Amino acid sequence: MKALVYGGPGEKSWSEIPDPTVAGPRDAIVRVDAVTICGTDLHILGGDVPEVRPGRVLGHEAVGTVVAVGDGVANLTVGDRVLASCISACGVCRYCREGVYGQCLGGGGWILGHTVDGVQAEYARVPFADLSTYRLPETVSDEAAVLLADILPTSYEVGVLNGGVRPGDTVVVVGAGPIGLAAIQTARLFSPTHVVAVDKAQSRLDAAKRFGADVTVLVDDDPLDAVRSVTDGLGADVAIEAVGLPGSFELCTTLVRAGGRVANIGVHGAPATLHLERLWIRDVTITTGLVDTRTTPKLLDMLVAGQLDTVHMVTHRYALDQIVEAYDVFARPAETGALKVVLTRR
Amino acid sequence: MKALVYGGPGEKSWSEIPDPTVAGPRDAIVRVDAVTICGTDLHILGGDVPEVRPGRVLGHEAVGTVVAVGDGVANLTVGDRVLASCISACGVCRYCREGVYGQCLGGGGWILGHTVDGVQAEYARVPFADLSTYRLPETVSDEAAVLLADILPTSYEVGVLNGGVRPGDTVVVVGAGPIGLAAIQTARLFSPTHVVAVDKAQSRLDAAKRFGADVTVLVDDDPLDAVRSVTDGLGADVAIEAVGLPGSFELCTTLVRAGGRVANIGVHGAPATLHLERLWIRDVTITTGLVDTRTTPKLLDMLVAGQLDTVHMVTHRYALDQIVEAYDVFARPAETGALKVVLTRR
Amino acid sequence: MKALVYGGPGEKSWSEIPDPTVAGPRDAIVRVDAVTICGTDLHILGGDVPEVRPGRVLGHEAVGTVVAVGDGVANLTVGDRVLASCISACGVCRYCREGVYGQCLGGGGWILGHTVDGVQAEYARVPFADLSTYRLPETVSDEAAVLLADILPTSYEVGVLNGGVRPGDTVVVVGAGPIGLAAIQTARLFSPTHVVAVDKAQSRLDAAKRFGADVTVLVDDDPLDAVRSVTDGLGADVAIEAVGLPGSFELCTTLVRAGGRVANIGVHGAPATLHLERLWIRDVTITTGLVDTRTTPKLLDMLVAGQLDTVHMVTHRYALDQIVEAYDVFARPAETGALKVVLTRR
Amino acid sequence: MKALVYGGPGEKSWSEIPDPTVAGPRDAIVRVDAVTICGTDLHILGGDVPEVRPGRVLGHEAVGTVVAVGDGVANLTVGDRVLASCISACGVCRYCREGVYGQCLGGGGWILGHTVDGVQAEYARVPFADLSTYRLPETVSDEAAVLLADILPTSYEVGVLNGGVRPGDTVVVVGAGPIGLAAIQTARLFSPTHVVAVDKAQSRLDAAKRFGADVTVLVDDDPLDAVRSVTDGLGADVAIEAVGLPGSFELCTTLVRAGGRVANIGVHGAPATLHLERLWIRDVTITTGLVDTRTTPKLLDMLVAGQLDTVHMVTHRYALDQIVEAYDVFARPAETGALKVVLTRR
Repeated sequence: MKALVYGGPGEKSWSEIPDPTVAGPRDAIVRVDAVTICGTDLHILGGDVPEVRPGRVLGHEAVGTVVAVGDGVANLTVGDRVLASCISACGVCRYCREGVYGQCLGGGGWILGHTVDGVQAEYARVPFADLSTYRLPETVSDEAAVLLADILPTSYEVGVLNGGVRPGDTVVVVGAGPIGLAAIQTARLFSPTHVVAVDKAQSRLDAAKRFGADVTVLVDDDPLDAVRSVTDGLGADVAIEAVGLPGSFELCTTLVRAGGRVANIGVHGAPATLHLERLWIRDVTITTGLVDTRTTPKLLDMLVAGQLDTVHMVTHRYALDQIVEAYDVFARPAETGALKVVLTRR
Repeated sequence: MKALVYGGPGEKSWSEIPDPTVAGPRDAIVRVDAVTICGTDLHILGGDVPEVRPGRVLGHEAVGTVVAVGDGVANLTVGDRVLASCISACGVCRYCREGVYGQCLGGGGWILGHTVDGVQAEYARVPFADLSTYRLPETVSDEAAVLLADILPTSYEVGVLNGGVRPGDTVVVVGAGPIGLAAIQTARLFSPTHVVAVDKAQSRLDAAKRFGADVTVLVDDDPLDAVRSVTDGLGADVAIEAVGLPGSFELCTTLVRAGGRVANIGVHGAPATLHLERLWIRDVTITTGLVDTRTTPKLLDMLVAGQLDTVHMVTHRYALDQIVEAYDVFARPAETGALKVVLTRR
Repeated sequence: MKALVYGGPGEKSWSEIPDPTVAGPRDAIVRVDAVTICGTDLHILGGDVPEVRPGRVLGHEAVGTVVAVGDGVANLTVGDRVLASCISACGVCRYCREGVYGQCLGGGGWILGHTVDGVQAEYARVPFADLSTYRLPETVSDEAAVLLADILPTSYEVGVLNGGVRPGDTVVVVGAGPIGLAAIQTARLFSPTHVVAVDKAQSRLDAAKRFGADVTVLVDDDPLDAVRSVTDGLGADVAIEAVGLPGSFELCTTLVRAGGRVANIGVHGAPATLHLERLWIRDVTITTGLVDTRTTPKLLDMLVAGQLDTVHMVTHRYALDQIVEAYDVFARPAETGALKVVLTRR
Repeated sequence: MKALVYGGPGEKSWSEIPDPTVAGPRDAIVRVDAVTICGTDLHILGGDVPEVRPGRVLGHEAVGTVVAVGDGVANLTVGDRVLASCISACGVCRYCREGVYGQCLGGGGWILGHTVDGVQAEYARVPFADLSTYRLPETVSDEAAVLLADILPTSYEVGVLNGGVRPGDTVVVVGAGPIGLAAIQTARLFSPTHVVAVDKAQSRLDAAKRFGADVTVLVDDDPLDAVRSVTDGLGADVAIEAVGLPGSFELCTTLVRAGGRVANIGVHGAPATLHLERLWIRDVTITTGLVDTRTTPKLLDMLVAGQLDTVHMVTHRYALDQIVEAYDVFARPAETGALKVVLTRR
């Protein structure tokens, strides 16, 4: 089969490799029908994730069809159409027992396209298949469903739920790329009164408005003033970091009110400065997190019910064998306007 | 009357000043029967809290007797024996309505010995008296009660409750001074399986054992190894910072397990480094906070029931007019072994 | 002045009585600009609330203008336009310190039109005025604001928040009268996937659709089937009782799924049967409650932001001196179609 | 092998039946080393649980040694010494993903000795073995460990955690049989100020004192007065029902304060009366539940650390083949003083 193979920093190719096979009783083999590219994949190609070794197939977000299952797979049958989620889970370790699948100690967590071969391929092996996949109803399209593999549960769990968004809140989202836009959209599920989007690009702020931000501000204008102007000077109830840079995190700690919450979604490569000399007295809660995908079933229900806008999240569509081109477009969002690119089997 | 008057950085004196009077309808005047000194008072004298102006009477932890009340005071009568708490509360602003008295926007919060004259004096004016004082039952001694003015609710609310300590947890407390010892003691209310104390002084670790730590380790030995050895290598469920230095905060973020909580109690004068490049994926929650004293009534019930050890918290006792000497002893704990010093009217 | 005076079961009159005066330092006197009638007022007239004595002025939901304040009122000034809420709060007792104003032990709670004279009058005395009133912004109309005095916070706190509604949930609301409709509307703030309304009148079910119910079912049809059909047979995540009869409560305990919540809003006059022989094993949580009005400030923010539909809640409008007629219309909703009736000073 | 076989209401025998075998990939076969009898087993023998069919092996609380495992069992090896818990879990269904194992929709939940053969036998088949068993450290005795199979997690999760016990609370436990005593003991993990035990037998109240009750009262004396006398007349913060009769449940709703919680543990065979005409306004939360055993790992840690008293829970010890005699003793606690009886392989 063909797969997108990582060749070391800066190197990738759409190469012929052996088909995956069932290697353990809890494995499933899935024919990939739709797949997308994550910002994390770009980090890997940038060399920032050294545990990914050359030769690894990338990708951790797919929709596919089950073509084989191990003896220990209880809930899947050949022919099932499934979401293959970015998180796998052994289901038995102390973290899995608490639903914290992202921190699985039993061989799961984020493994696809990371420590085992991923799903940017014609076929993929999905370990712990019962807890790593979700059967899809017919009414949900591949393109919509693939957004439930990572970006929507990540923004919802790590941003909105960790941030504790409540009706009437003011939420500020720093970073209006795909994950920030998904955070804006899923924050709206809790009916905040204001969602303030901050970004360096006006085009992204325009997108933020489409997903539910009512206030937008360029990062070089005055985000603090923008937030204070809608909060009687207090600051935001919740600040969501959706960039992954020290400056954007520090901005969040400035924008949040006393007693508020900072929820970090961004993937960081460098430390930030935490101004405890100012924050120690301000009752601030800061959270970090990897997605657990424990909300995936509920998000799927909401998708079926039409409560989520997936259509405007996907800006580019390709055939699976055009993936190298798709990477190129996805890597230059300022020029291409790319949010999510979806590749499908044809 | 006499009072301990701040004279600018490094300057204090036990001076004659006018008696306080009822200045507003919600004020009470209290004759001070017992008072203590806080580490924060030393910070003020060190010049670290510039909003405290020369001429200010210091002190925010007292037990006293009501000698006068304003017309708007509903629940106090002349002659009542009360705890005068470190936090005052207007009771009306949005924070007070949520019980977040420490962040009061209506003129309360930490004001005594800070923005208004404090309680290291023969008499004190207590604003918002209904919400800033607590009537004391006869069975509670002045010396025990005065520890409920700040140190016990602070360690309990900002350390233990913000930290979310649960039965069976492993809790690490970095810093075994008075506030850290109070955190150890109040953490024990939730029956953690292990309480690990970390300090640079063996004498403080010995004290930590008396208050309930079952593992103690010098900071220059290997705290991480000590924590891992009792947690199957995972790290602490809860790490409580009780020092107020960047290094001790950063240590806490190292000692906590994925999915755990870091609760900062320390008063910080400088920023810390937050290693988001390591923490972003680890589901960590970090909290800061000023005490709200919302647990003071429950702590008082527990004190009456004998559930709190206040006796071993007080190491030195003085008459009120010996307060300058008491400050000196309290400021040199390594030599004097001082935890809390209590001064009483005689 | 004129006021609606209770004369004993079945008796009421719009009578001349003395103007109210400031009786304590925390009182305010309010000129009533808009007022509404509550189902509870009908209960009182029915003789179900014996602690209401003949001679009492009824009413606990008003908007007005402050005309006098006691010395201990801090945050109100003569001329302020305020919401006079159904709940008063001393702000000092153990319940008030926890924000549980409805259970105030210090003389507050639901007192207006209950244990002290109420607001269906030209003027009213509001005890504990700082914590019982809310200043109104100009952009909010009297008619909209008066719905924040009781019905909206009650449905939101006692129904939706006690019920723990979450995005993606299925919520069933039994009873589509005014309080049920307000529960449907405020449940929508949490983006449930389905809101099922149950009532005995088709006209009320039609109203339920306007406020956000996507499934409606007559109580004599098969509510259980309706709920199961949208929940894979499991039952509702949350069942909200908005009637106040044993049968409707028991229906809620039938409609809720294992692990779900039943939130009772209804005012009950008789015991219900709790089928513990079936429920003991089903992980059900049942809540009851009186409103605390702790969400009133947030609801007011949401009202200003246009997030609440108050327009369709008000079906009839009268001048204040037409109140006897208004009671009559409100008491016969099946014939009149009345939801809320609002009376205004002219 | 020999097993305790249910023969229909009132009928049981220690009979020879075929040895169990691995029937599915997730099964384990366990040699039973220690087992106990539950009050629920008496209910089954009383005919109250009709889904238990004649021929069924009873028992759902054991410690044993793994003698065989299916291919899909990941974490157990032949020779492992394990706790076989009363709850099995598929780990995949929507309830299991939330840790609500007791409500498992995938074939788990309470199945042992209920819908499949149980553990009062020389050998037992344990379905879903990875999630239904817990490996035991050497330092824990069989007799101590077997109390973690049901009674301790049930009292802790369904009584204490559902009840939300907090430091300083007053907790009343109605019923001081084995499950009530376990609730008293595990409530103490949260340092309530008062634990009030109510029972009809003085001998059980004496036992309650040994497990941590500081107030005891016969049910025919005045439990309400006893509770009010230690709560300033307010009532208990938490009332735990540990009997399973309508009267004891109704007593709990009388003893709880406004804003408090009633946690039902008892297995009920008949409905209770819920006095909503009194409770609707009192902010009461009532919970029911089947244990999920999600706290079993933490309880095991606490057992190892010596935080739980299992020694005084076991009053009678027998060899496994004396089980008919053991049932007899356990069924007559008033005469025999039996709390838990433990049977061991010899």
